[in-house]
Amino acid sequence: MSATPTIAAADWGTTRLRVWLLDATGAVLDERRSDEGLLTAQHKGFANVLDRHLQDMGAGKDLPAIVCGMAGARQGWVEAPYVDVPASLSDILGAAVPVPGTDRDVRIVPGLAQRNPRTPDVMRGEETQLAGTAKLIGSGSHLVCMPGTHSKWVIAEGGAISGFGTWPTGEMFSVLSEHSILRHSIGDKPAVVSPDSQVFRDWCQEALFDGDIASRLFGIRASGLLSGLGQDDAAAALSGLLIGAEIASAVRRFGRRGSPVVLVVSGALGALYAEAMRLDGIAVTVADADEAVLAGLVAAARRNRMLAEGVAS
Amino acid sequence: MSATPTIAAADWGTTRLRVWLLDATGAVLDERRSDEGLLTAQHKGFANVLDRHLQDMGAGKDLPAIVCGMAGARQGWVEAPYVDVPASLSDILGAAVPVPGTDRDVRIVPGLAQRNPRTPDVMRGEETQLAGTAKLIGSGSHLVCMPGTHSKWVIAEGGAISGFGTWPTGEMFSVLSEHSILRHSIGDKPAVVSPDSQVFRDWCQEALFDGDIASRLFGIRASGLLSGLGQDDAAAALSGLLIGAEIASAVRRFGRRGSPVVLVVSGALGALYAEAMRLDGIAVTVADADEAVLAGLVAAARRNRMLAEGVAS
Repeated sequence: MSATPTIAAADWGTTRLRVWLLDATGAVLDERRSDEGLLTAQHKGFANVLDRHLQDMGAGKDLPAIVCGMAGARQGWVEAPYVDVPASLSDILGAAVPVPGTDRDVRIVPGLAQRNPRTPDVMRGEETQLAGTAKLIGSGSHLVCMPGTHSKWVIAEGGAISGFGTWPTGEMFSVLSEHSILRHSIGDKPAVVSPDSQVFRDWCQEALFDGDIASRLFGIRASGLLSGLGQDDAAAALSGLLIGAEIASAVRRFGRRGSPVVLVVSGALGALYAEAMRLDGIAVTVADADEAVLAGLVAAARRNRMLAEGVAS
Repeated sequence: MSATPTIAAADWGTTRLRVWLLDATGAVLDERRSDEGLLTAQHKGFANVLDRHLQDMGAGKDLPAIVCGMAGARQGWVEAPYVDVPASLSDILGAAVPVPGTDRDVRIVPGLAQRNPRTPDVMRGEETQLAGTAKLIGSGSHLVCMPGTHSKWVIAEGGAISGFGTWPTGEMFSVLSEHSILRHSIGDKPAVVSPDSQVFRDWCQEALFDGDIASRLFGIRASGLLSGLGQDDAAAALSGLLIGAEIASAVRRFGRRGSPVVLVVSGALGALYAEAMRLDGIAVTVADADEAVLAGLVAAARRNRMLAEGVAS
């Protein structure tokens, strides 16, 4: 570690934690990844977990920290109450809540709530990812897709979030492949689905047509019984079906069929969503989700005067 | 037991078995229910399980038996190969497969296969239920709904099955309420959902509109966080969402929006489906599923000359 750290940043999810040391420009000096997410930190203590990671990286006990994600949930470190949408990204970041009773200055970025009785929804963490894509979505109107266990789709307009929705696509893949009759089709082996798979494309294409999952799920099992669909192909079919249906459902919900999409994603999942959107004729701009959340945490630190404004890395 | 039994009938599902003793008119003399479905019978032996139940009811070792359901699956007693649709109910029942090497004359009604590459599907057992509703569906064109773990919807035309589909609504309710994030909303207590629940109706109504499940699932969790939706109401919301989506999806698949439906169902589930169809303005004729499968087994016995034709009970 050559330079002196100015601040720490942490993305604290339900099952994962990432911590960075940043210099005065927001550049990364060091980084740690751990599985001490909310569920683990509730037992170990949030301050203890963060202290140990920062100590391991040689940072002092008084280094400030900016945090986003589930650490701000009611069952987290300190509740950072939801900001209601519509809300500007600047106001969201500015509402970061200080953690009382700690040696270091820790602030937690709040999540978002959509209190519409027909489409109630919440997010924690993705608002910071969004803030990190401000260069892409800072002006104009954008449909943003953030795939994952609980995929979030957001309408961003002029640097504000006007509405959003959640599609639990990753979770449905897990519970259906592990606990439904489809476990006989997919087997125990961890599924690796390729965007080049014709089965993925075929099932995705069908689901893109109308967003209907329920009428097609059992067809994966039936294809195994009637035409010998193998385990890898069954996983590809389920993935294509769920991702295609998510996209069809989301563009319908927001009345944006045919609109371009900003896809904020990391890793193998990105290629599957990009292929599904290509099949649907959607123009896609991709932003890396890992980079986006870090950029959002830097923006939050600046917004809360924990880092100087205008010092670019 | 006063009269002499002429035949035994069995509905052999994945997890349940029902056995009846019938007289020469097809009237029930005695009945047994057990949890020795396919999964148990694979270990104990199908012949042993059936023999013991019939012996318990005082029937002889040479009493013939007509069987439907998973006993005819590849992993069952003897495979009764699928009959491809379109197929007449009479031909399906007539294709019952004899079990070799048993003292008694046992025949197993085959299941159905739909070998359309876009809508591959299979059923085993429901074809016999359908045959038992012949008085309702014997002529004309009918849309039939058979709710359950894997709900089946069938187009019956002039006593033949022209097409069908599977909606795994009961299974989705189980796996999502037990294994997804919704377990925090619904809790461990077995859910009892009433068709009088306004929450059931509201979520059902929404889903009837477009059949979209994925965009709404997380809303159940969010309603708990934002407006204190309780556990019973969360279960009612999930039930309403899945049943409403099933109905919307099925009437769309078969191009029968607004058509009357023959609902073949037993128990509490029937009231939920009937209410959901009422909300959608669908005219419903209800047939009891337990009575239907027995009537179908009697029809199968007659079709295979195991019972005399035309001897009404």
